[in-house]
Amino acid sequence: MDFELEHAKEILGRTPATLNAMLRDVSEAWLVGNEGAETWSPYDVVGHLIHGEETDWIPRARIILEHGEARAFEPFDRVGMFEKSKGKTIAELLDEFAKLRKQSLNELSAMNLTPELLEKRGSHPELGVVTMKLLLAAWVVHDLGHVRQIVRVMAKQYSDAVGPWRAYLSILDEH
Amino acid sequence: MDFELEHAKEILGRTPATLNAMLRDVSEAWLVGNEGAETWSPYDVVGHLIHGEETDWIPRARIILEHGEARAFEPFDRVGMFEKSKGKTIAELLDEFAKLRKQSLNELSAMNLTPELLEKRGSHPELGVVTMKLLLAAWVVHDLGHVRQIVRVMAKQYSDAVGPWRAYLSILDEH
Repeated sequence: MDFELEHAKEILGRTPATLNAMLRDVSEAWLVGNEGAETWSPYDVVGHLIHGEETDWIPRARIILEHGEARAFEPFDRVGMFEKSKGKTIAELLDEFAKLRKQSLNELSAMNLTPELLEKRGSHPELGVVTMKLLLAAWVVHDLGHVRQIVRVMAKQYSDAVGPWRAYLSILDEH
Repeated sequence: MDFELEHAKEILGRTPATLNAMLRDVSEAWLVGNEGAETWSPYDVVGHLIHGEETDWIPRARIILEHGEARAFEPFDRVGMFEKSKGKTIAELLDEFAKLRKQSLNELSAMNLTPELLEKRGSHPELGVVTMKLLLAAWVVHDLGHVRQIVRVMAKQYSDAVGPWRAYLSILDEH
């Protein structure tokens, strides 16, 4: 599938509702379980997505528009959310993410990205030369990847509970 | 996490809304892409979940209640949905799944599963002796596994579109 801005926005716009459906008002046990030391719970993942709205995707798109390749993106702090999420309920995090994502999509629309601007180049601190289009496609897949992470982490809380069915449930062997 | 009926019902009850958030009114291109020959699109997965409501989970719970180990479950036809879904829109499939899931959860509640009934044994055609509790835990993980499959399949439509970001997006290398 070739990148199309409208396709990308469809998925980006849906993620808050997807997370709501999965996580709002769910029992604490489903929210805080993780996959072991140094891994994330569903609660942690929502915090990470919030942090991405604030420091990663749209800020990088702005850098491309304003500076092109002349200024590299700030490196993204993948665990920057642990401090910021502290003490917040999952409902607060979901609301915050939904609000920020809406703002991000409004700003994305306001950028009026023409086919030419979608090809505009930027500089990633590790990946080197990238384009606006690649950044936006990565944003979409990043969302989907974290939805998949949340369901995987939730599923693993039942790794033992499924007994012999484990043989049929490959999600329990992913990481 | 030990199995608890209320925890399981929470997740089972959320799946229709999760699928709605991800798939209703989304562009055809996101719905029909798959991972290659003999693999499923998001559209196919919803059909599979419908088929599971009709022939797999609750029917097996009924067999355990009524026959215990004396009667093995019917083998589940994993591709039984291809014929049945034909010609239906995704909206129709999502509505049908939501309706059937609601009926399933109503029937599950009506079973009044006590701790003793949760330990009641049944006979799986391949896995051998199982219990009601194992069956219900497997149902939960089956749901989560298919949500993960849907997001993975959608993500893979952008495998090329993300360019060098692929290195950071492990969902694109899962199968």
